[in-house]
Amino acid sequence: MGGDNAPDVTVEGATAFLSARKDAFVRLHGDEAKLKPILAKYSSVADRMEIVHTEDIITGDMKPSQALRRGRNSSMWNALEDVKEGRANAAVSAGNTGALMAISMLVLRKMDGVHRPAMTAAWPTLRGRSVVLDVGANLEADAAQLVTFAIMGEAYARAILGIKRPTIGLLNIGSEEMKGHDEIREAHEWLRGSDLELDYQGFVEGDDISSGKVDVIVTDGFTGNVALKAGEGVARMLGVRVREALTGNLFSKLGAVLAMGGLKNLRAQMDPSNVNGGVLLGLGGVSVKSHGGTDGRGFARACQLAADLATSHYRDEVATNLAKIRQKGIAAE
Amino acid sequence: MGGDNAPDVTVEGATAFLSARKDAFVRLHGDEAKLKPILAKYSSVADRMEIVHTEDIITGDMKPSQALRRGRNSSMWNALEDVKEGRANAAVSAGNTGALMAISMLVLRKMDGVHRPAMTAAWPTLRGRSVVLDVGANLEADAAQLVTFAIMGEAYARAILGIKRPTIGLLNIGSEEMKGHDEIREAHEWLRGSDLELDYQGFVEGDDISSGKVDVIVTDGFTGNVALKAGEGVARMLGVRVREALTGNLFSKLGAVLAMGGLKNLRAQMDPSNVNGGVLLGLGGVSVKSHGGTDGRGFARACQLAADLATSHYRDEVATNLAKIRQKGIAAE
Repeated sequence: MGGDNAPDVTVEGATAFLSARKDAFVRLHGDEAKLKPILAKYSSVADRMEIVHTEDIITGDMKPSQALRRGRNSSMWNALEDVKEGRANAAVSAGNTGALMAISMLVLRKMDGVHRPAMTAAWPTLRGRSVVLDVGANLEADAAQLVTFAIMGEAYARAILGIKRPTIGLLNIGSEEMKGHDEIREAHEWLRGSDLELDYQGFVEGDDISSGKVDVIVTDGFTGNVALKAGEGVARMLGVRVREALTGNLFSKLGAVLAMGGLKNLRAQMDPSNVNGGVLLGLGGVSVKSHGGTDGRGFARACQLAADLATSHYRDEVATNLAKIRQKGIAAE
Repeated sequence: MGGDNAPDVTVEGATAFLSARKDAFVRLHGDEAKLKPILAKYSSVADRMEIVHTEDIITGDMKPSQALRRGRNSSMWNALEDVKEGRANAAVSAGNTGALMAISMLVLRKMDGVHRPAMTAAWPTLRGRSVVLDVGANLEADAAQLVTFAIMGEAYARAILGIKRPTIGLLNIGSEEMKGHDEIREAHEWLRGSDLELDYQGFVEGDDISSGKVDVIVTDGFTGNVALKAGEGVARMLGVRVREALTGNLFSKLGAVLAMGGLKNLRAQMDPSNVNGGVLLGLGGVSVKSHGGTDGRGFARACQLAADLATSHYRDEVATNLAKIRQKGIAAE
């Protein structure tokens, strides 16, 4: 039970998830003495929750290497062991991102054929949502890794966005004569010529992400992380500016009150808790990262995403495609 | 005279610039037969404008290499020759970006100590404007190039933003134990330890750009281009969403009308034409790129920026700092 507002928000989110999903069961990893009084408030779903007691925690300031050394028997580690041992279908955490990635990789291991796992983000677009990956699990990605990200992102988009045949784009910059780094060009050639059944649409640019031009945007972790945060920064700035503009004088204040219904809908659409949940793809089990500062609804959304992914055909589809590219010598053994 | 709406918008912008800046003179490069009838509309500044006739143009779809081969005597090339020969203090174009970069580099040459020029963008923030570079002149940047970008960006921010001592940040991703690529870490160490009088604030992340945490954001051209376009994409999407929200029903429509004053101010603040003008820094002369699709006001803004830069101490300041780092063996000879 990690995150900025744990364990209250986490328990609230988990119970909201259980109310929406009647076939689910939640194992809450954390300090029984703290969890029990909170759980008492949610009696309607109490029979589908179980506390797995531990007092050890991964703190927010722990480095991944420290978490690996000292984290055994922490709530985060135990949740991932649950997945590994088949006691759970997925793990969800709002705690330390770096630690979750490191422990997930150690405990769940990588899928065969995956060089490096990739972190996803759900990006709100003019047409709905797109999946961007990698947004920070790796600094760099060679051509084979980018192709693997495309395969994983495509299956993931089908699982969680419900799109039958997600389209894929490779993030690049536009200039005619220098079409990106060698690794991007190589991945492009490979995806274009592959006999995988992927709907690869070619290069996309930064502004194509929000337009929803493709369902899956593939890039390295450094670029993806910068793009995601740059976009979040612009959204936050514009939010502040719109609020200022609408409360600048009496007329605009009155206008804002009248327009409130529409603006509330917009806020709901753009609410980060509606798109909460980054998934580390390419592991031997489902590990979902919730924003640390999320609310109960956001954490419930992350649980829902974990459940959708765990009950989908995602892993089989990825495994099939990875086996195909391995034959061609591009994927890792 | 290039750009999507040339020559009308370009002439309109140039004359607006002349009206605002009484000491300026403009040499219009282009087809006299087309320019003369348009110029006739602007008699009040006609004595400070001169047509330099040519019928040759660089088209929007020409590759940089084609432009270099076939562009001699085009309006773009002639404008840059004007700068080289001292007939003008700066060149401004709304035409083909790649061609402008290539011809600028060939005609104006690089400043001593500059490995590669860098393209700037002015990014609207919560505190005003920040300068981001490189946004696409290069695909990659090693540590020495990033340090050079910092030096050029700082002097540029002082020249055009009027900030006495601009702060500088190096764009990175946040994860604790993998603080960016080797070249970023190396540039960081160098900027931190340097005896240049730069106000270097360390690493910044993508969302710090819009918050205005620092005045100058330094990054490689690939990352900068993706960040800029991702930000533009988010702004465009939110613009559409706010409009939809405000016209969703009768109440919100009425509200939008009442709130219009504030929203108009916001639109003016965020108007791309208010931040129009990317500059290719590191050349032996001033070359400014206006957005191709800008309006007259935007093109006037680009001219203003060119004039500000040309009349500033920018080049002396950069030359002094580059000489210092060259002694340390980091800059190009």
